[in-house]
Order: sequence, then C-alpha cells, then structure tokens
Amino acid sequence: MEIQRRPGGRSARVRDAVRQATLVELTQHGHQGLTVENVAKRSGVHKTSIYRRWGSPEGLIADALELAASEPWPIPDTGTLVGDLRAITELVRAGFADPRGGPVASAFIVAAMQNSAAADAMRIFTTSRRTQSAELVRRAVARGELAAEVDAEELVRYAVAPIYYRLFITHEPVTAEDAVKAADAALAAARAGVL
Amino acid sequence: MEIQRRPGGRSARVRDAVRQATLVELTQHGHQGLTVENVAKRSGVHKTSIYRRWGSPEGLIADALELAASEPWPIPDTGTLVGDLRAITELVRAGFADPRGGPVASAFIVAAMQNSAAADAMRIFTTSRRTQSAELVRRAVARGELAAEVDAEELVRYAVAPIYYRLFITHEPVTAEDAVKAADAALAAARAGVL
Repeated sequence: MEIQRRPGGRSARVRDAVRQATLVELTQHGHQGLTVENVAKRSGVHKTSIYRRWGSPEGLIADALELAASEPWPIPDTGTLVGDLRAITELVRAGFADPRGGPVASAFIVAAMQNSAAADAMRIFTTSRRTQSAELVRRAVARGELAAEVDAEELVRYAVAPIYYRLFITHEPVTAEDAVKAADAALAAARAGVL
Repeated sequence: MEIQRRPGGRSARVRDAVRQATLVELTQHGHQGLTVENVAKRSGVHKTSIYRRWGSPEGLIADALELAASEPWPIPDTGTLVGDLRAITELVRAGFADPRGGPVASAFIVAAMQNSAAADAMRIFTTSRRTQSAELVRRAVARGELAAEVDAEELVRYAVAPIYYRLFITHEPVTAEDAVKAADAALAAARAGVL
C-alpha cells in the first residue's frame, strides 16, 4: 500500500508515507514509544525496507524533522519589534504546551541528543527557522527601530533560549509572562549593543 | 564486596558504591551505554539489589545527580558583577567541553528528558546551583553595582541559558566568546530593568 497523494517517483512516495507515519507515531507514543515495527504497520512500507533506508527510530526522526522544517511557519508582523519578538517566544512556548504538537517537538529534541543524524537535522531545522525569523529584525532596522549592527539571528537565538532552558534543562514551567520576559531581555541586550 | 571508605551504615555504603560506579560508567560509556549489569559489576553490589532499589538506569542517574549536587562548587569572586557572571558562564561552557566531566553532565540532561525521577533530580540540582550563584548578584547589589530589585536567580538563569541552548537544542559550538556574550546580555537585560 502506498500513499498516492503527492507527485514523485515510488521512492519519494515511500519516503513521504514513512515520514508521515513517523510524525503520527511520535504524536501518539513519543520518542521512547517509536518503533520501526509500528511505523512499518502505519505506513504500509515493509519493515526491512525501513531498516535498510532509515536504520533506526532516530533515523526516522531525523528524516521527519526535515519534513517539519519545510512546513510553512508564520513570521509575525505586529508592526513593532518588541511585538514581533514576543509573538515568536509565545509561539515557541505555546508550541511545546500544545497537546498535539508538543510531544512531537520534544521527541525531536530528545532524539537529537542521542543521535548525530537527528542532531544534524535539528541544526538545519533551527537554522531555517532562525533565518526566517531574522526577517522581523531586519524589518525593524528598516523602520529605524534598531541599529543595523545588531546580529539579527543572534537576537532571535537569545529571545528563545530561556524558554528552551526551562523546558529541557531545568524542567521548570514556562508561563506566558516568561515568554514576554525572554523577548524583552533579548531586545534589551541588543539595544545595549551586546548582540 | 563493599567500599568501606566512608562512615555510615551498610545501606549508605551500598548507595555510595552504586552512585560512584554510576558516575564512572557514565564517564566511560555515556547515558546510552549505562546498564544495571555494569554498575553491579563495578560496585560489587548484586544486580537484583540494584533493580530493587533504583529500578532502572534512569533511577541510577537520578541518584548520582543528587551526589553531584552535594559536591562543592566554586562561586567566583572577581570583584565585579560582570567578571563573576562571565566566570559562571565560562565554568558552564568549560564543564561541558571537559572530556571527563562533559559526558557525565550531558548524560544527566538526556536522562532528565526521558525519566521523571531524573527530571526531578535535575530541577533540584539546578535550583541548588542557581541559589548558590545568586550570591554573587547579592554581593553586587551590596556593592551598589546593581539595583536591589533585580531577580538574582533569574539573572543567573538568563546568563547560562544561551549556552545550554546551543549545546542541547541547536547543537551549535560554544566558544569562550559565546560565554562572555551570554553573561553580558543577561547583565544588560537586568540593568534595563527586565530581569
């Protein structure tokens, strides 16, 4: 059985089916519950083909992450830099709190810590998101809100870092106020000439 | 066979032997290579006793983390807040880069993502370190370097967050310059009244 929705050769259709099945399995069972057997069952692709091409559950996660990176991501445009940065940090906070998307996103992060292919995929994914987000900093520079010398990507990195730190390092809750503070702190550092 | 170096009852000696063996195993084989069998062999404590008391490799890690939290930690005292904060962020950066301590510290972080007992231990550990570090902020307030309203623990959290973010989320390298910048950014945010 193959999914026929997308154009492309047999190989592309198999890959698509396996990546979609991986995302669904991650949503339902998390990183630790992901098995090649279950992805085979859900995708209709034979187990031995999956082992040959993806190697392991971590290989499946790395490939699914590439799919996630290609999905459209809403870059906020509130009219002010502080509004845009707060929207970004709130998007990150709410994303991990979401009962559907949160476990998948967390599974990606855990997999990246345990597998170098997943870590590479994570680096590519976060670079893509950060490059897109840096657009809002460039718009602020164009509006005269911020000095042109500010490192746009570094500002985005600093805005989201405290949220990830609480979620995945110290295991502390993250409130909407924490998201606002993280954005404001990064902006303050940028305005002080540090970023 | 039991380690007799420390005072305390048999139970305390067994616990100590198992925790030390866990740390050595983590250093040599990392989180994924940690097995109850190897800890049993190294500690001289029977496998079934370890299973009964610690349950799993993650249980062993959680307990070893408690031991790590009780170890003395050098709080810097350079004479200025910026110097102290930079010393803290450099300590974190160098700690993870250290070939002996780095893999153990990383193993703790990965285990905490996969096991709630390890996550609880990690929360206690980071709270302890942060409470100790907040002392340098209080000294700076006493010297008149910083407003008394600044949240000392939040300032420490913000100083280290960008380092952990690069190491464990985006999997980017962390340079000594990154450590300096992380400290300076947190301080700028605190001086701007955000933290």
